[in-house]
Amino acid sequence: MKHLPVGPLYYEFSRHHEPRLQIEPGETLVVATEDALSGQIRSDADRRDKTRMPYSNPLTGPIAVEGAEPGDALAVAIGAIRPTIGQCATRTADPKQLCEWLGTDCPHGTHVCPIRDGWIHWSDSVRIPYAPMLGCIGTAPDWGSPTTAPAGPHGGNLDLVETCPGSTIFLPVFVPGGRLYLGDAHAAMGHGELSATGLEMPAESTITVDLIKGKRLTGPRIESPEEILAVASGCPMERSIAQAYAQLILWMEAEHGWDRWRAYDLLTHVGRISVGYYGIGTVAAKVEKRYLAGR
Amino acid sequence: MKHLPVGPLYYEFSRHHEPRLQIEPGETLVVATEDALSGQIRSDADRRDKTRMPYSNPLTGPIAVEGAEPGDALAVAIGAIRPTIGQCATRTADPKQLCEWLGTDCPHGTHVCPIRDGWIHWSDSVRIPYAPMLGCIGTAPDWGSPTTAPAGPHGGNLDLVETCPGSTIFLPVFVPGGRLYLGDAHAAMGHGELSATGLEMPAESTITVDLIKGKRLTGPRIESPEEILAVASGCPMERSIAQAYAQLILWMEAEHGWDRWRAYDLLTHVGRISVGYYGIGTVAAKVEKRYLAGR
Amino acid sequence: MKHLPVGPLYYEFSRHHEPRLQIEPGETLVVATEDALSGQIRSDADRRDKTRMPYSNPLTGPIAVEGAEPGDALAVAIGAIRPTIGQCATRTADPKQLCEWLGTDCPHGTHVCPIRDGWIHWSDSVRIPYAPMLGCIGTAPDWGSPTTAPAGPHGGNLDLVETCPGSTIFLPVFVPGGRLYLGDAHAAMGHGELSATGLEMPAESTITVDLIKGKRLTGPRIESPEEILAVASGCPMERSIAQAYAQLILWMEAEHGWDRWRAYDLLTHVGRISVGYYGIGTVAAKVEKRYLAGR
Amino acid sequence: MKHLPVGPLYYEFSRHHEPRLQIEPGETLVVATEDALSGQIRSDADRRDKTRMPYSNPLTGPIAVEGAEPGDALAVAIGAIRPTIGQCATRTADPKQLCEWLGTDCPHGTHVCPIRDGWIHWSDSVRIPYAPMLGCIGTAPDWGSPTTAPAGPHGGNLDLVETCPGSTIFLPVFVPGGRLYLGDAHAAMGHGELSATGLEMPAESTITVDLIKGKRLTGPRIESPEEILAVASGCPMERSIAQAYAQLILWMEAEHGWDRWRAYDLLTHVGRISVGYYGIGTVAAKVEKRYLAGR
Repeated sequence: MKHLPVGPLYYEFSRHHEPRLQIEPGETLVVATEDALSGQIRSDADRRDKTRMPYSNPLTGPIAVEGAEPGDALAVAIGAIRPTIGQCATRTADPKQLCEWLGTDCPHGTHVCPIRDGWIHWSDSVRIPYAPMLGCIGTAPDWGSPTTAPAGPHGGNLDLVETCPGSTIFLPVFVPGGRLYLGDAHAAMGHGELSATGLEMPAESTITVDLIKGKRLTGPRIESPEEILAVASGCPMERSIAQAYAQLILWMEAEHGWDRWRAYDLLTHVGRISVGYYGIGTVAAKVEKRYLAGR
Repeated sequence: MKHLPVGPLYYEFSRHHEPRLQIEPGETLVVATEDALSGQIRSDADRRDKTRMPYSNPLTGPIAVEGAEPGDALAVAIGAIRPTIGQCATRTADPKQLCEWLGTDCPHGTHVCPIRDGWIHWSDSVRIPYAPMLGCIGTAPDWGSPTTAPAGPHGGNLDLVETCPGSTIFLPVFVPGGRLYLGDAHAAMGHGELSATGLEMPAESTITVDLIKGKRLTGPRIESPEEILAVASGCPMERSIAQAYAQLILWMEAEHGWDRWRAYDLLTHVGRISVGYYGIGTVAAKVEKRYLAGR
Repeated sequence: MKHLPVGPLYYEFSRHHEPRLQIEPGETLVVATEDALSGQIRSDADRRDKTRMPYSNPLTGPIAVEGAEPGDALAVAIGAIRPTIGQCATRTADPKQLCEWLGTDCPHGTHVCPIRDGWIHWSDSVRIPYAPMLGCIGTAPDWGSPTTAPAGPHGGNLDLVETCPGSTIFLPVFVPGGRLYLGDAHAAMGHGELSATGLEMPAESTITVDLIKGKRLTGPRIESPEEILAVASGCPMERSIAQAYAQLILWMEAEHGWDRWRAYDLLTHVGRISVGYYGIGTVAAKVEKRYLAGR
Repeated sequence: MKHLPVGPLYYEFSRHHEPRLQIEPGETLVVATEDALSGQIRSDADRRDKTRMPYSNPLTGPIAVEGAEPGDALAVAIGAIRPTIGQCATRTADPKQLCEWLGTDCPHGTHVCPIRDGWIHWSDSVRIPYAPMLGCIGTAPDWGSPTTAPAGPHGGNLDLVETCPGSTIFLPVFVPGGRLYLGDAHAAMGHGELSATGLEMPAESTITVDLIKGKRLTGPRIESPEEILAVASGCPMERSIAQAYAQLILWMEAEHGWDRWRAYDLLTHVGRISVGYYGIGTVAAKVEKRYLAGR
């Protein structure tokens, strides 16, 4: 099984970086990623130093998939996400859009938490279930090079709890090889990622990357064991919700034989929304698979 | 146990309507409500006729609580929500904000579904678990009379799946007696209430209404068996998310002894968002109660 | 000429208040209004005391127009707006949505400015042209009673600089008599009304109120000497802009013989936007009248 | 005077393109740009063919300025914008966010208009004053390569009517040389650029590019003969308005000696908003220069 070490830290989903690894469709590999804070916080005494590294969310990649051409899709099955150093780190700082209600005197604090026995030890009295996910995953667009701050049709800084072991994420291919990047693993994350910093950890992720020829996607899709999810991003969030549900409806129409307005009616009653980083308006609209046969 | 029948259909949370029922704090009562379509759709052949009734979401009430004064709060514990006629109805029409992706040719369809054995029989092949909730619940403001379309500090058209049996909703009192209204029961509802019409049913709800003296609330709160939730409403939704989390943080600070910035950090990792009707940007920010002791 | 003095201060566009004046269509009258601060700030030493009056924007009215029925429109021509006491007042407080960039230490300051010779004397060194407008004008809805905080199809807290002498505002009639209210005169106001408090003044406004039978409006319209304007309100503002332009297009189609898509094309090149209070997303989309004949 | 011909069409503000021209600070030059439709529509019979060119808004550049370093600013004074071929072109297509009110049957029409004697001849009966502006102008970021669709701190697809002859636009320098790009000249444009396509023309723009050492800007600024303007972009637009006003206040504080809260008060009364392409929420907050001395 191939192993891709961390290597140079890239902060863009860019077609300008040369592939660090070339794989065959169907290969399983282990990808090591640095944490979103570029490894600057390894103890409670460390501070995030933006003069040394102003960007967040370094990526490992790109990975080129043999035979991937524009108009295809990558299917990235996530097998496991392991903490590399047995801990994760977080920080608080300016509360930005919350200042209207909470004020601005948020301490610039950092916080390192051990990960043991399936728990994140956030404090002496609070432990949080270890529920790892990848905050950033995406391919290189052919038009522009998005930073690791936004999300979009290429994937990007999705920050969805469903990008986790057991799920498969489907991403459009825009350039030859697809050029897959990943990073920003979290040991756990709440809906909305309120402070914009999760429980950030260097990690090793086992992924299996498949190629689906001729599968044109308008944006990321996720399949979990129980659900299918369509993703949209951008503010205002109510517009992203409309777009994500619309993409889910069109998916049900194209691949599961549903009339689009029947699907629209069904999702009104059984659809669910998962919220990514609220500051950029990312959401996934989802439906349980057991409904799909019922058109 | 008192029983409040449907009576005149009100479409406003208004202090101008005389109380139909006066209760003591702590009383349990059964409240009957018409469905959100004002009962116009009882069979698949019926159509929503807005020339006869242009408004949606008729309410039963107001209920006055003895001793309730401005600055107090009502605690409404929801015990059960039963379908009055064994069925619910829904309809599809203009897809509004979805037209950009789906077009505008949505058939103006109506659809009646039997409710039996804990299931909503949506079609021959699809059944949906019966998971009833109250779409509208609120008190009468002292400034303005909101219709049953929006939500706000008084409650209103919340459309949250958590306003369900087993939960208690806390609402501010703005005028003497509080003047509680409820309606818009759904047999089930998806996050976002995509088409703006749930599985609407006439219902009988058993509620226990308590009075909390001197408890000033800035907006609705919900307590479920497992979680506490703060509610905010309004577009853009990312702003409501910020506001709802801020209210949850201030609640943890005021009643559970948390430092606000510690709570801010914790909720980043374990908070969850529930989305009400997406067209008006209602959300609940929530946290599991087991975390509250861990400050 | 009839004169309507200030009378009781109402803070709602409500059908529940009895008309204070009944007029014939076409009558000209003078309406006195209190300032938006309920007259609490008459000198620099005064402070806004929300414990005595929590609401803003008191209205004078309602005025009933003989023969006005639901489905008609009122045309309110604004002739003059005079400062009653030769001065205006403003205040600053919490910067709300600006705190993210400016912090929260805004002094709760008040400021009274003399109005003389066509100028507002804001400070020793800054004078602002006297450019009066009515912040609030509207009719009573049949569904709900909006406060003087939002704007909507009934008019309301529009805060548009074009609601000024020389303009005519068209408002839908929802209840018999129309029940017109006005208030919140500003000596001048910037786009967006950044701090939410303009140069507030008690004023006397000369208005001529006409009735247009059978003219169904979906929202407020304004006609100035040079332009026609369609108004929409609500967040996000980009959605209100789309709605306001759409209403302007439908107006050009219905009353000026334009093909809607030709009008859409034209407005892309010559349309203009005026921004009301940014916190509630009010905008007017407008076009110069000289273009209207050119379909 | 140097002349930069159209050359290769770039659709990104990218640091990866080699400079096509190196200039000294203070140089005046003429820059030729293709139209936003990549020249595909030269007659009414032409159609926009996205299979041949899927992107919009080709740029000419980059231009490197001698001595420009990260942390400096470019000052680009616009002297004249001339139509290269005596005509401009526009097109209508999907009405996107307007479909909710107007439907979706917008004809995919194109339209070429002669430019003569200071007028754009839009139809036999409608002529529009020639009021040229540059839709796109910006520098290359050091993090990511934005396409020509959005706007941001680097400038970009601003679509502001004030980026016109007589104005100077100030842009941050992120990479050595600054790497200035421009394009998307419009013969005229309405606020909001409703259909997303202005009166697009190939053009020759005379610009003078100055370098201001050590002038750290957080986003684009414009100075016109009468006003200063701060620019912000992003949805929801009410947030961009708050941000643009905040930037204008901080500018008045830093360079004109104003107390920030005094400036906040003043702009409430005399500020103005100009709206760029509404779909991406770009706005400029502005104030007349004559107020600046009055602190």
